[in-house]
Amino acid sequence: MGSQSDWATMRHAADTLDALGVPFTARIVSAHRTPDRLVAFAKGAKAAGHKVVIAGAGGAAHLPGMAASMTPLPVFGVPVETHALGGRDSLYSIVQMPAGVPVGTLAIGRAGAVNAALLAAAVLALSDPALAERLDAHRARQTAGVAEAPRDEATGG
Amino acid sequence: MGSQSDWATMRHAADTLDALGVPFTARIVSAHRTPDRLVAFAKGAKAAGHKVVIAGAGGAAHLPGMAASMTPLPVFGVPVETHALGGRDSLYSIVQMPAGVPVGTLAIGRAGAVNAALLAAAVLALSDPALAERLDAHRARQTAGVAEAPRDEATGG
Amino acid sequence: MGSQSDWATMRHAADTLDALGVPFTARIVSAHRTPDRLVAFAKGAKAAGHKVVIAGAGGAAHLPGMAASMTPLPVFGVPVETHALGGRDSLYSIVQMPAGVPVGTLAIGRAGAVNAALLAAAVLALSDPALAERLDAHRARQTAGVAEAPRDEATGG
Amino acid sequence: MGSQSDWATMRHAADTLDALGVPFTARIVSAHRTPDRLVAFAKGAKAAGHKVVIAGAGGAAHLPGMAASMTPLPVFGVPVETHALGGRDSLYSIVQMPAGVPVGTLAIGRAGAVNAALLAAAVLALSDPALAERLDAHRARQTAGVAEAPRDEATGG
Amino acid sequence: MGSQSDWATMRHAADTLDALGVPFTARIVSAHRTPDRLVAFAKGAKAAGHKVVIAGAGGAAHLPGMAASMTPLPVFGVPVETHALGGRDSLYSIVQMPAGVPVGTLAIGRAGAVNAALLAAAVLALSDPALAERLDAHRARQTAGVAEAPRDEATGG
Amino acid sequence: MGSQSDWATMRHAADTLDALGVPFTARIVSAHRTPDRLVAFAKGAKAAGHKVVIAGAGGAAHLPGMAASMTPLPVFGVPVETHALGGRDSLYSIVQMPAGVPVGTLAIGRAGAVNAALLAAAVLALSDPALAERLDAHRARQTAGVAEAPRDEATGG
Amino acid sequence: MGSQSDWATMRHAADTLDALGVPFTARIVSAHRTPDRLVAFAKGAKAAGHKVVIAGAGGAAHLPGMAASMTPLPVFGVPVETHALGGRDSLYSIVQMPAGVPVGTLAIGRAGAVNAALLAAAVLALSDPALAERLDAHRARQTAGVAEAPRDEATGG
Amino acid sequence: MGSQSDWATMRHAADTLDALGVPFTARIVSAHRTPDRLVAFAKGAKAAGHKVVIAGAGGAAHLPGMAASMTPLPVFGVPVETHALGGRDSLYSIVQMPAGVPVGTLAIGRAGAVNAALLAAAVLALSDPALAERLDAHRARQTAGVAEAPRDEATGG
Repeated sequence: MGSQSDWATMRHAADTLDALGVPFTARIVSAHRTPDRLVAFAKGAKAAGHKVVIAGAGGAAHLPGMAASMTPLPVFGVPVETHALGGRDSLYSIVQMPAGVPVGTLAIGRAGAVNAALLAAAVLALSDPALAERLDAHRARQTAGVAEAPRDEATGG
Repeated sequence: MGSQSDWATMRHAADTLDALGVPFTARIVSAHRTPDRLVAFAKGAKAAGHKVVIAGAGGAAHLPGMAASMTPLPVFGVPVETHALGGRDSLYSIVQMPAGVPVGTLAIGRAGAVNAALLAAAVLALSDPALAERLDAHRARQTAGVAEAPRDEATGG
Repeated sequence: MGSQSDWATMRHAADTLDALGVPFTARIVSAHRTPDRLVAFAKGAKAAGHKVVIAGAGGAAHLPGMAASMTPLPVFGVPVETHALGGRDSLYSIVQMPAGVPVGTLAIGRAGAVNAALLAAAVLALSDPALAERLDAHRARQTAGVAEAPRDEATGG
Repeated sequence: MGSQSDWATMRHAADTLDALGVPFTARIVSAHRTPDRLVAFAKGAKAAGHKVVIAGAGGAAHLPGMAASMTPLPVFGVPVETHALGGRDSLYSIVQMPAGVPVGTLAIGRAGAVNAALLAAAVLALSDPALAERLDAHRARQTAGVAEAPRDEATGG
Repeated sequence: MGSQSDWATMRHAADTLDALGVPFTARIVSAHRTPDRLVAFAKGAKAAGHKVVIAGAGGAAHLPGMAASMTPLPVFGVPVETHALGGRDSLYSIVQMPAGVPVGTLAIGRAGAVNAALLAAAVLALSDPALAERLDAHRARQTAGVAEAPRDEATGG
Repeated sequence: MGSQSDWATMRHAADTLDALGVPFTARIVSAHRTPDRLVAFAKGAKAAGHKVVIAGAGGAAHLPGMAASMTPLPVFGVPVETHALGGRDSLYSIVQMPAGVPVGTLAIGRAGAVNAALLAAAVLALSDPALAERLDAHRARQTAGVAEAPRDEATGG
Repeated sequence: MGSQSDWATMRHAADTLDALGVPFTARIVSAHRTPDRLVAFAKGAKAAGHKVVIAGAGGAAHLPGMAASMTPLPVFGVPVETHALGGRDSLYSIVQMPAGVPVGTLAIGRAGAVNAALLAAAVLALSDPALAERLDAHRARQTAGVAEAPRDEATGG
Repeated sequence: MGSQSDWATMRHAADTLDALGVPFTARIVSAHRTPDRLVAFAKGAKAAGHKVVIAGAGGAAHLPGMAASMTPLPVFGVPVETHALGGRDSLYSIVQMPAGVPVGTLAIGRAGAVNAALLAAAVLALSDPALAERLDAHRARQTAGVAEAPRDEATGG
């Protein structure tokens, strides 16, 4: 992710990967403040044994796209919500990549972080039947967890 | 894809997969006009031997998300450009999925279609070294094809 | 509605239907997490005796449109407000349906939920004179409740 | 509709109603240039035997909402596309009605006009079994008309 | 204004008119909930001796435009801020009037309410030299009130 | 207006004033390229006998607001449509004035130019009964010119 | 800056210049409420020995562009965040300058204020080697301050 | 610039620099397709004797920000207009840089390209009196070129 402040969002990706038993490394790589680290990380990601890169960033969010430009691995991007523009700037900066260098982009904020993890797991599950089973179980639990009818409750908004 | 009219965009995905030697099936599945076909396709996609689903649609673009709700395979979505809103409606309808059901979303229009194919290839290349080599070669050609300096030419826009 | 969290919005539809004496069933049907329930509900809605479907959802809000694709009943959609984009994503995902499958869309949030109920009542009132009278009375009370001049008061915003 | 220039959009509603055998009256009622006509039309619509009002307008599109304020009939609104803002102004002006006076809003432009007619037909079909059958047949033809696979063809865009 | 809730915004217009010694009448006229009151007010505004109409409303804000359609007096509109869309819906609904029926539109929210009063005063001052002097004095005080350099202070955001 | 290129829009204001028999002066004053001319014009407008200022500009459109800061006369602003952003930039730059310096803003483009002229005429008509009559006649012709029903015709879009 | 209220944003520019040892003068110049001060400041800025102008303003933010129209010095603009539109109005009003009068625009809000100072310093550093060294050191500290991995911590959202 | 297709926009920067007698080098550096070239260029720009970097790019436009992350030189960015989103994606991707790494951003499209050149020239003119004179002359010609009154002419829209 691009900065410590993105961790409030990206930890949901980490939590989801943990829940699915998918090992991962969480690192802070700022495209703008640590460009050398970005180059080193992205160019070395495949050799380091990574299979998928999840990159979250906000505002003029260049981390996912720049990582994608320097690795053949699939890159999934999470637009972090921003105060002024709600994350629209992050979304456009990540999703509107030119033809040739793809970033699979997820929803703005927490939902996107969770889903980046689920999408990465779905990719890994293509060649990992045990993970595929855990993912199926996760989805089945998710389906079963949807109540039939709404409950009244103290609501906050 | 959602309709014949989306083919002008999605054929760029097909062309890119062809160029990379990735076999695929192109089908029209309208989430709204052929919901049964959508259910049958999405639920059967894995059993039919598919590895990745690429779905392109425009406007209230429900095809990618609904497909993702009914298959454990990775789903990549391409927002087709629309006349009134430029594809912003397509983009929001595809990318803003709730936590639990991911769609990896690419850019609006042709660039997104090309990139959906490249991203699918990158996923498949994780377990297909020959494809990985073809993909690396594709990227190398792409890099080599960027001229050092701009040329003046008759421009249309 | 699409999830328990939508109930804070959609309960205003329920309250309005209650106030008008219109019987209804409130159910949670997640297009993405419970697609089978969606198919079963939408395909069976007419046979179950329903006359109108009100569907509220947020973000990539596919519930109203997908319901509309599988029932001949009129479907009214309520875009639930979202944190990042204010409900613009919900609105576009619901209103921008392609030609062939309509969703009558109401305002974002609480006003839309109230109005979905009023619009459903107006539809039912076409063949229910007693309901038409109750609806007329409701509108007359509403008109009478608008003061002639503003009052100063402690305001919160 | 609000002006002669809206007819290029709204005729698609008329054509769809014709195809379904639903009788209708097409009138130009400008909220701003003919407010008296609007009042007379909206207040008299029910007594004149109308069941549903379809109103299309562009820009600061007040026709649907103002009609809805003066008739108990269901009102469906079609945002006409505008040059500067693509119809976003029309959409917001129609859909964002306050609680109390609903307008069921359709998509911007031609798709919305077609769908307003289909939605009106669905409402009327609740008490007209023959129309319900024609509507079912229309939807079945529509489903059957979706090809299985895309065709290459000369494309214009 | 369109509702009691708009008073939090529109009272700033009233306060400004008071400060300038411009007499006015503040009334609640809901375009949607009290259309008859709107027609009566707008058609009678000139005969009642009004010179300028200031209308504030939010969401699908039809009050200013509809008033303008039924009075030859200058109408100034104030878009009230809305929760979901920040007042963009109000702004578009007020400013995008078709050729033929103008509404002079001010900024969203409090600034717009203050400025509607100032603009109305500028119009009245064209034929009221004493008011013109008070307005000049108001502007001079405003200019004099701008400090040369910023002060540090406890800030809230 | 801000530049010769704005004349395609602003000539509709000139034509409307001509039709109403309102004398005016059309000048090009660029806030950015001729700031001295702007200062001279705005500060001298009242003394030169002008009653109302109509200012049209596009993009970062500072002309209307800067003119308003230097004259006590009412200023009406016309946002000229722009290629990239459709005139949203012009609209925001004109309408979002801070409290203290109002600009009555009209619609983007041609409609706004026509309406700026009509609004200026309405202001002048407050103290010019003959103009008030011509304006009433203009509006009556406008109302009479709205056909009862749409005509089919060759349409261009 | 345009008003005292902008100081909450612009003080971050002042703090950054202080940290880099760049002398500056902070003044309040309201384009709309103190146009004479604006003219005097902008026209005299070069003669007063200034090298770069940083101007922050919100809403219809004319200060940066108008300053740029009256000084040959480089002008950098900071769009102050606004409540209703998040600063999009400020951004468009500053960045969309017509060809001929440039404003180098930074991000909305605090980040933009910090960066305006850094950009001004980079400009001054072109002819001030000591400042160039301080700026390099600042960037090196910034890079070194990015942790390798995220820390869990109490987060506020 | 990011690609040959950006040259249609960026040549206006080149033409402006030529007109001002400012030497420059035009190169194509694609952040995504030639990341190594980007790193080499940006890291070496100062040593190569460059004073200012002008970078134009469209869509998810990472070139200006990434260049800024690897050079201490001032970087000015030009958002190239895009088909789907009008250049809003380019603008947000360039202007919304996080605190620490500034990009001075100009208008979308041709105006921005011209202005990037003018701003670069203004920066260089701080230590080049001859250039300062040429720049002053350019601005004086520009001011003199604004006609007093509009001309009717064949207009294209």
